[in-house]
Amino acid sequence: MPHASGLVGDDASSRDLVARAADALERLRARRPRVHCITNTVAQAYTANLLLAAGAVPSMTIAADEVAAFVAGADALLVNIGTLDEPRRAAIGIAIDAAAEAGIPWVLDPVFVDRSPGRATFGEALLAMRPTILRLNPSEFSTLSGLAAEPGQVARFARDSGAVVALTGKTDRIADATRLAAVANGHRWMTRITAMGCAGAALTAAFAAVEPDPWCATVAALVCLGVAGERAAVVSSGPGTLATAILDTLFDLDRKDLQERAKVS
Amino acid sequence: MPHASGLVGDDASSRDLVARAADALERLRARRPRVHCITNTVAQAYTANLLLAAGAVPSMTIAADEVAAFVAGADALLVNIGTLDEPRRAAIGIAIDAAAEAGIPWVLDPVFVDRSPGRATFGEALLAMRPTILRLNPSEFSTLSGLAAEPGQVARFARDSGAVVALTGKTDRIADATRLAAVANGHRWMTRITAMGCAGAALTAAFAAVEPDPWCATVAALVCLGVAGERAAVVSSGPGTLATAILDTLFDLDRKDLQERAKVS
Amino acid sequence: MPHASGLVGDDASSRDLVARAADALERLRARRPRVHCITNTVAQAYTANLLLAAGAVPSMTIAADEVAAFVAGADALLVNIGTLDEPRRAAIGIAIDAAAEAGIPWVLDPVFVDRSPGRATFGEALLAMRPTILRLNPSEFSTLSGLAAEPGQVARFARDSGAVVALTGKTDRIADATRLAAVANGHRWMTRITAMGCAGAALTAAFAAVEPDPWCATVAALVCLGVAGERAAVVSSGPGTLATAILDTLFDLDRKDLQERAKVS
Repeated sequence: MPHASGLVGDDASSRDLVARAADALERLRARRPRVHCITNTVAQAYTANLLLAAGAVPSMTIAADEVAAFVAGADALLVNIGTLDEPRRAAIGIAIDAAAEAGIPWVLDPVFVDRSPGRATFGEALLAMRPTILRLNPSEFSTLSGLAAEPGQVARFARDSGAVVALTGKTDRIADATRLAAVANGHRWMTRITAMGCAGAALTAAFAAVEPDPWCATVAALVCLGVAGERAAVVSSGPGTLATAILDTLFDLDRKDLQERAKVS
Repeated sequence: MPHASGLVGDDASSRDLVARAADALERLRARRPRVHCITNTVAQAYTANLLLAAGAVPSMTIAADEVAAFVAGADALLVNIGTLDEPRRAAIGIAIDAAAEAGIPWVLDPVFVDRSPGRATFGEALLAMRPTILRLNPSEFSTLSGLAAEPGQVARFARDSGAVVALTGKTDRIADATRLAAVANGHRWMTRITAMGCAGAALTAAFAAVEPDPWCATVAALVCLGVAGERAAVVSSGPGTLATAILDTLFDLDRKDLQERAKVS
Repeated sequence: MPHASGLVGDDASSRDLVARAADALERLRARRPRVHCITNTVAQAYTANLLLAAGAVPSMTIAADEVAAFVAGADALLVNIGTLDEPRRAAIGIAIDAAAEAGIPWVLDPVFVDRSPGRATFGEALLAMRPTILRLNPSEFSTLSGLAAEPGQVARFARDSGAVVALTGKTDRIADATRLAAVANGHRWMTRITAMGCAGAALTAAFAAVEPDPWCATVAALVCLGVAGERAAVVSSGPGTLATAILDTLFDLDRKDLQERAKVS
């Protein structure tokens, strides 16, 4: 194995990850990629607003007979299983096939996979369809990987699954088969805003549409969201105003903000 | 009948209802109860954000094959019939059975029960399943109870139904078989925010998870929401900013706010 | 043809469109019309909040067995095809029939009709059911009309379809068979807020409930939303705070705001 897990790989350390995140953000705004989101009804509006603020163009239909056409016309796909009703479940399979055919990246957000047995089984089946990027919290990580939710295990799960794995929390850990990064941005109020994680996964899909290296795309998305959150907290009084202000700060986030605030290692 | 309707019962008047509400709020933040919400798609995001701001942990799936597992792992259940599509209807029966089996409280919010005959029939069937707490507005109250929406009748409906009945409006009236309280907090702009009532019912479920007396839990939820609304109005310019600010004020509401502003009788 | 397309018709120019918009807004607040919205799950909450802020009363159920009763009790109907799942599709036909029977106006918002073939076919079928008002963006306009999205063609499509046609964009163009108006209000951040167009269509339905001339109702709705957006931008820092502030400014919009800011020709 060329790189020990727990260390940032040579490829990454040879360039400035923050500069690369800033480059990706600029491309996102210039290219305005389309991101098709199959996501839960709780998260849809905030996810769409976060994508629009960043510069992407969201679509969200789950109708079985048109989801393939939407995905074929999109630049990335998000699959979030937050409210897993029957039509959504059917749409997911179609959407993933369409993404594979179109050769576009897709992000899996296995929300609450730890809370019902059927959901765990479904999550495993989706993992076998080889998502480009997998975003999960510690409980979801343990259920899906069978591993302890520790930094070193993130790299192992990335190698086993073939996906970029992003374990989010106070510090986010992002691994692919050979590289591991940590992002320590964000604000504690962000855990009190519904759909913040879901919207972060959608933002990751948007970055993957414009940054060909999915590990760099994931780092970029999480550092941008974290820095936007920190800037927003300065003008907020709690989780309500923070959720709104993040849309403003993400909308006008610039290279200087990232350089000053990013905590990437 | 030991207590005349229209008066706060002896049990309640023997302690300070406001102090008890503040105690319950502290427990809510310490215990972080899980509240499963079967609620309409319009209300989902705001409901989730209000629960998170208060300290609870929401879940919202309606998938028939997993709702029982979610309810079994929850500390309270909300059933709101606002957008009554077929999957939601199926999930409701399963969820109520699971709540009964788990011995957790459940709150019924029979939204728009006055607006379609099928909905009235369904609302009556749900009432027969004995919700712990029933929250409704005057039109919904009249349709479901067959009584005039007056304070005295709230106590009567509470006795007939076996539920704590909360008739919400400019002044909220909360009755169980022997006690009747009035909460006169809140702000007129709150009527111009969608899902405010729905989210209030969800908050009631969260309080019922940590306060064993469901009548006290209902009073506590409505007084906390009303006081949060009043504090939020001070920094708001209309219903838009108010909806956001309430999440902030509920997040940091404290005993002193309740003592200074609560209008409970 | 009595009036050349491209010019405001005599009927309209004989009175002040802005004054008429202000009159309609006052009636909207006084009468509080009920607007039933079959709209996508992404847009539901913001649409409901915008209607409430303006003074209307929204309902949103899509259950096949009760949608007719809701529409029969409503003063206007919105049909938006943004997330076109099967239950929504079934509800739409029932709702349109109920609106025709009740003699109430209905607004069609054929969202993303340009993005999937099935959606285009469905959009054409809905158009054949003769909506009172049709709101669309340039791509949707071209797909549905087969015409270039140019001001002159808006009048032609209005004549062909029998609907008031509102082509929205930087400048909105509103045509019926004989009249064409342009509304140049709004703010560029409004394009970065999900559901803003959908909510604008719902607001058009609300105005059509209180203004018998659907062309005037459409102009009124779009000018009120645009002016509210401009006033909101003054106190906003980006699309997040703007979305919230528009609810405040629409809530207290008055005749003077319209007189000072409306750009109608």
